Amino acid sequence: MEVEVLEGVFDANEIIAGENRKLLGEKGIFMMNLMSGPGAGKTSFILRTLEGLPENSRIAVIEGDITGKIDSERIARTGAGAIQINTGGSCHLEAKQVNTALQKMNLDTIDFIIIENVGNLVCPAEFKLGEDLRVMILSVAEGDDKPLKYPLMFTESDVLIVNKTDLLPNTDFDMAKMKSVVMKMNPDVEIFELSCRTGDGIASWISWIKRKVPGDAVG
Amino acid sequence: MEVEVLEGVFDANEIIAGENRKLLGEKGIFMMNLMSGPGAGKTSFILRTLEGLPENSRIAVIEGDITGKIDSERIARTGAGAIQINTGGSCHLEAKQVNTALQKMNLDTIDFIIIENVGNLVCPAEFKLGEDLRVMILSVAEGDDKPLKYPLMFTESDVLIVNKTDLLPNTDFDMAKMKSVVMKMNPDVEIFELSCRTGDGIASWISWIKRKVPGDAVG
Repeated sequence: MEVEVLEGVFDANEIIAGENRKLLGEKGIFMMNLMSGPGAGKTSFILRTLEGLPENSRIAVIEGDITGKIDSERIARTGAGAIQINTGGSCHLEAKQVNTALQKMNLDTIDFIIIENVGNLVCPAEFKLGEDLRVMILSVAEGDDKPLKYPLMFTESDVLIVNKTDLLPNTDFDMAKMKSVVMKMNPDVEIFELSCRTGDGIASWISWIKRKVPGDAVG
Repeated sequence: MEVEVLEGVFDANEIIAGENRKLLGEKGIFMMNLMSGPGAGKTSFILRTLEGLPENSRIAVIEGDITGKIDSERIARTGAGAIQINTGGSCHLEAKQVNTALQKMNLDTIDFIIIENVGNLVCPAEFKLGEDLRVMILSVAEGDDKPLKYPLMFTESDVLIVNKTDLLPNTDFDMAKMKSVVMKMNPDVEIFELSCRTGDGIASWISWIKRKVPGDAVG
């Protein structure tokens, strides 16, 4: 009985995710879903991405948090459009919430939407939002054993950002070991090692995402 | 409709948590529920705790993970009893799973049970397991804004362990600010600042938990 209820939730989510995708397709908008555990650096990564893309890029950010608007305020200070979704306790975003946010935005003025999901390495991976690209962040401070403990997130992501590389000398994180585990689970994943704090390694991510977003949306 | 289903889940969990508590009360066992986001250092903290308590302490560890047994194997290498619960995708432990684990253990040989919950700063706080003490870990690498973003965990915990203090010089973590926010949300919380990596600050936690566990269970 419980399983039936859950399947219902997932099915309904898939349908609305499909609607989101259709709407974005019509408007020619590229949408990225950014996921990670708490404190891996999602907001800092978005700020670095906004900074790295041309000034005239038409980008909007959807911020998912359980409560509060710390992150959308951080984003808004850069001048980028930011919409805050508060999940009211729920540990992940669902397609329906994103749909509501999309309806509040002027989609004709946007080419690229970045969604910052709730900080959680588990459930966000189960809920598609209608995105074109799924990006996850692992901070080296979290340890190199995370892919084996939270496999779905690592399997479902198109891109793995390994953040806080400036902390590598102060941790026991084994980059080669972690990457080899992830490559076995998800051979197509793109991996970027960088530090949002120092800016190290950001350039190759920027160059990659520029090529990925269709047309000349982001320069 | 959806809300009704959720309330049903929570109610059922409360009942089984009550049964766990009754069983543990009869056996004179003290149970601690350890929660945090992924990679904040739960397993390392348990290892430091086992190391700090007298050798003849009768302690068992219940390890909650989505999949795999990396953590229970780490614990078992110390000689402590360890039982692994795999949630099969679920992002938190529920009282029922702990009940199943308790039934597999010889409770007459145990005085202190440590439960390592699934790495998640959100949902574990919503599910009581029948524990006497709720302990959460925040790693300084996660940032000082976490209490405002994940308030329930910080409000529901009896103890806040601030881990990885050895990384403080390499982060922008503002300890005073974080503590002041937490103290407003949860004035009774006990806060320990420590580093499981270096061992710094562990002694005061050990001395506190020794006093907390009833009788002479842990020396």
